[in-house]
Amino acid sequence: MKKWKTLSSEYVFSNPWFKVKKEAVELPNGKIMDDYYIWDEPMVAMIVAFTENNDLLMVRQYKHAAGEIMIELPAGYVDSNENIEVAAKRELAEETGYVCESLEKLATIIKNPTKSRSKVHLFIARNVKKIQSQNLDISEDIEVILLSLEEVADKIANGEINATDTISAIYLASKRLGLKI
Amino acid sequence: MKKWKTLSSEYVFSNPWFKVKKEAVELPNGKIMDDYYIWDEPMVAMIVAFTENNDLLMVRQYKHAAGEIMIELPAGYVDSNENIEVAAKRELAEETGYVCESLEKLATIIKNPTKSRSKVHLFIARNVKKIQSQNLDISEDIEVILLSLEEVADKIANGEINATDTISAIYLASKRLGLKI
Repeated sequence: MKKWKTLSSEYVFSNPWFKVKKEAVELPNGKIMDDYYIWDEPMVAMIVAFTENNDLLMVRQYKHAAGEIMIELPAGYVDSNENIEVAAKRELAEETGYVCESLEKLATIIKNPTKSRSKVHLFIARNVKKIQSQNLDISEDIEVILLSLEEVADKIANGEINATDTISAIYLASKRLGLKI
Repeated sequence: MKKWKTLSSEYVFSNPWFKVKKEAVELPNGKIMDDYYIWDEPMVAMIVAFTENNDLLMVRQYKHAAGEIMIELPAGYVDSNENIEVAAKRELAEETGYVCESLEKLATIIKNPTKSRSKVHLFIARNVKKIQSQNLDISEDIEVILLSLEEVADKIANGEINATDTISAIYLASKRLGLKI
């Protein structure tokens, strides 16, 4: 099984919030497709952050594309040229007011491999501490909540936690740390 | 915490493969944002399919946006006006050649709540049987593989299985069925 070869690539829709590329590609069977569309989405940094009581730090907010109020792990886009670990710490502090001394790389996961170029870089942070207020955009209204792993597992099972990156990150972190969920 | 109110919505990029909407929205604080961009992605049906030996049916294929050869659960877009269960059975048969007698609804999960309108509808299928050849598009080259749950857990842990919808679906199915992963 082989990768496709990109012959050309151009932006066909582009603004600071959403960019779409059209690529011409050659398939392994020699066939040319001249219109493969890709969402040029930035990288994401997501943090599985535990307090010193081993509660998980989560954020509850309205997400307009889904049309739902959701409970997720803190996360955000990595700015262009920003170091991914720096972005993870920045997003954690901005969204929650909590900070950590160090991060442990957990995994890299992919939300939409067919259509989006983005990847989600996962980190574990332990003993996070609240030292400041949230620093939110005008469009953001984020409630910080602390949940035990047992509460998180219940909310995944009953659908209250339903974002695929959050569920995957919690599963991977629990396996890494030998915790049962 | 309240939802945003959509004041208007229009397509600003649209073809059969990728559609972007621009919406004007009113936030709970009264502020108006006149340019919130949303990927109008179709719904997805995904199947956690077990053979009568309790192996999991997975598909291995190149995904161009990610640029990787990936191992995922069978899945695909639901056609407009298509029943979601019908779509799930159709995708399973087309991608793998396997069929099932009945499906059990597992959960609905969300890959990109900030930017995409799509949801992923998960089903469990048991005792699936191969009765036909795959029926693939010209751009598709899909290898069907059978893995034990233990092998799947190992591949999630080592990053060989890294798609968030697939990881979430396998975790949710293992909890529903009381299986350890």
